[in-house]
Amino acid sequence: MLVNVTKESLLHALQHVLKAVVANSPNPILSGIHIQAYEKALVFTASNTSMTIQYRVPEDKDSMNVQRTGGIVVPARYLSEIIRRLHAGWIACESEEPFILSITSGDSHVRLCGLDPAEFPPVHSPFTDAEPACKFHIQNDVLRSAIRQVCVAASTSDSRPVLTGVSFEFTGGNLSLMATDGIRFASRTLHTGYNINNGTNVIVPAKNINEIVKMLSDDKAATEIAVSRHQISFTANELHVQSVLIEGVFPSAVKNVIPQSCKSELLIGPYGFLQAVERVSVLAGGNIIRLTAASGKLVLLSGTADIGEVRDEISLEAMEGDDFTIALNGRFLLDILRCLDSGSLRVRYTGKESPVVILTTDPLSPALFLITPVRTHD
Amino acid sequence: MLVNVTKESLLHALQHVLKAVVANSPNPILSGIHIQAYEKALVFTASNTSMTIQYRVPEDKDSMNVQRTGGIVVPARYLSEIIRRLHAGWIACESEEPFILSITSGDSHVRLCGLDPAEFPPVHSPFTDAEPACKFHIQNDVLRSAIRQVCVAASTSDSRPVLTGVSFEFTGGNLSLMATDGIRFASRTLHTGYNINNGTNVIVPAKNINEIVKMLSDDKAATEIAVSRHQISFTANELHVQSVLIEGVFPSAVKNVIPQSCKSELLIGPYGFLQAVERVSVLAGGNIIRLTAASGKLVLLSGTADIGEVRDEISLEAMEGDDFTIALNGRFLLDILRCLDSGSLRVRYTGKESPVVILTTDPLSPALFLITPVRTHD
Repeated sequence: MLVNVTKESLLHALQHVLKAVVANSPNPILSGIHIQAYEKALVFTASNTSMTIQYRVPEDKDSMNVQRTGGIVVPARYLSEIIRRLHAGWIACESEEPFILSITSGDSHVRLCGLDPAEFPPVHSPFTDAEPACKFHIQNDVLRSAIRQVCVAASTSDSRPVLTGVSFEFTGGNLSLMATDGIRFASRTLHTGYNINNGTNVIVPAKNINEIVKMLSDDKAATEIAVSRHQISFTANELHVQSVLIEGVFPSAVKNVIPQSCKSELLIGPYGFLQAVERVSVLAGGNIIRLTAASGKLVLLSGTADIGEVRDEISLEAMEGDDFTIALNGRFLLDILRCLDSGSLRVRYTGKESPVVILTTDPLSPALFLITPVRTHD
Repeated sequence: MLVNVTKESLLHALQHVLKAVVANSPNPILSGIHIQAYEKALVFTASNTSMTIQYRVPEDKDSMNVQRTGGIVVPARYLSEIIRRLHAGWIACESEEPFILSITSGDSHVRLCGLDPAEFPPVHSPFTDAEPACKFHIQNDVLRSAIRQVCVAASTSDSRPVLTGVSFEFTGGNLSLMATDGIRFASRTLHTGYNINNGTNVIVPAKNINEIVKMLSDDKAATEIAVSRHQISFTANELHVQSVLIEGVFPSAVKNVIPQSCKSELLIGPYGFLQAVERVSVLAGGNIIRLTAASGKLVLLSGTADIGEVRDEISLEAMEGDDFTIALNGRFLLDILRCLDSGSLRVRYTGKESPVVILTTDPLSPALFLITPVRTHD
């Protein structure tokens, strides 16, 4: 392999794939970046076995040209630290026997010991082969907002692996995203416009999908999503990311516990609500905050013995039904309020011990959250 | 105590004094901030016993007024977290028996459990009393640059406390700052213009003085420095910081080992030198980098077995004397190069095993650094 590439293009590609590098893997190949020079493109790949990121730098007279094809794996940390410190402009990268990457930029000469690219985990990407998969496109800003909201409710404990994932359920032209950790539940339905086979349901690790949507920087562009039996992949311009799926069955029955009626419903401006919850959370012992809705106002209370207490109050945009008081985990409420886009919130009280329902008022694709209240002794 | 103060003034004061708060002190009073309302000013104080920071908010119709004098100590962490989350604008703070601080802003009401201000370590400040001290002024940017450069050589190990400090030596109108950890030495002399008693020499903890100069934000303003037998204090506008002194005698004899003659002298542009040292440091095993000066060039080399090697080269602005090769600790060299202001550097080679001398070319107050070379077996 012999390529000339600008520092800027090289750094841009590295910044994308670094997110899948395992910092101190017992398997050194996973701490490396696979660089492959094809006739007309340079492809960077990193994989932590659960998620694989590829970034393609196409041939371009101002930023990259391939003189000789070939591949090598080099330690990610050293490679990126060196490249960041080189002069701006062209860098020549040449692989030498046995697996040495020689890097030259101006008067700087670096030789990095690499590894055999044949040992790198194989990647099934659109550049190599194609497993039959169902494919569709979603606009990046819609996808990112939906994934952020649903991931809020995913579990971080490995005791039930299916709960650490986001369920993708296809029905007709709709994609339902769902997650729950047993105490919280979040869902959002997106209209894909594609008629996808009913039953192509998969569970994607929340950690991976959360990282993936952060990489989709161009809001108005669309990402191609391909779902097959063993993986889900996202392709946006030169970026291709794929994730393994979680085996198992998502507890879709949780959908049936969504209360269909309520005793009261509040309409609240989300920004003032977020700020008030942030204030009361500072002194919330055990994260518990108490909400009381009455006479057009919501009063928030929290306290910790020997430290102090906070009382806050916000005006409601509207209220229907009875006055009520409920105790919630303030951190769970903050998680939800921090991932909302805009527009008012509907908060539904369905009883002292049944879940609070929070709905966004986005008419196209509303998000729905459930939080089980905290039982208190007063 | 009852005061009205804007969120902005309160936060500004807290941000200054928070640097001296002890996060989890076994003595809870040190995790607190002492707030004292005087007739015409509100004074915030925090102390970790080694360094004390006071910030004064004067009475002003747009930002602060005192309704009732008095004082209280409140937990710093909770206070600052709450204040940051309040609405912008006026905040009312009132102390209530027994040591409760009640904070009101709009519809937010907070009660914070405080501590008895009488237990707070007493502060000898210009606002309270005045120990006879020698006083002088130094412009902030000059002071900051000098302290940053000299602190580079201070020791971080507590095995010899005097080496963790910066020595302030007064001779006529000059102030010599010096630090050494036994392997490095740094010094810079400032012209104070004040005739200070010879022999008023003190050692200030490098950690404290480093923090203090970072707070002096107004470059062209001057800070008043007052040195007494037990402490040194810095006063700039509303900010007053004082530090304890380190007892003991600074090993001033190190000044006598500064080589007076040299075998070669290089004149180098500091920015290109810094960048080259940063590059070779990435792969420098044991931090060792090798410098070779010959034919108008300086070649830098480093390497780590099984990882790789870097070779870099920079042009010298001038060179006098013999060619040479020397091995240095790259981290020590980086520490120096990162705290330089501008202007070229003189690097003096004085022999394979005697210190390298680095001099800045600032004609008014040059800085001098010594680095003992690393002994290598080749």
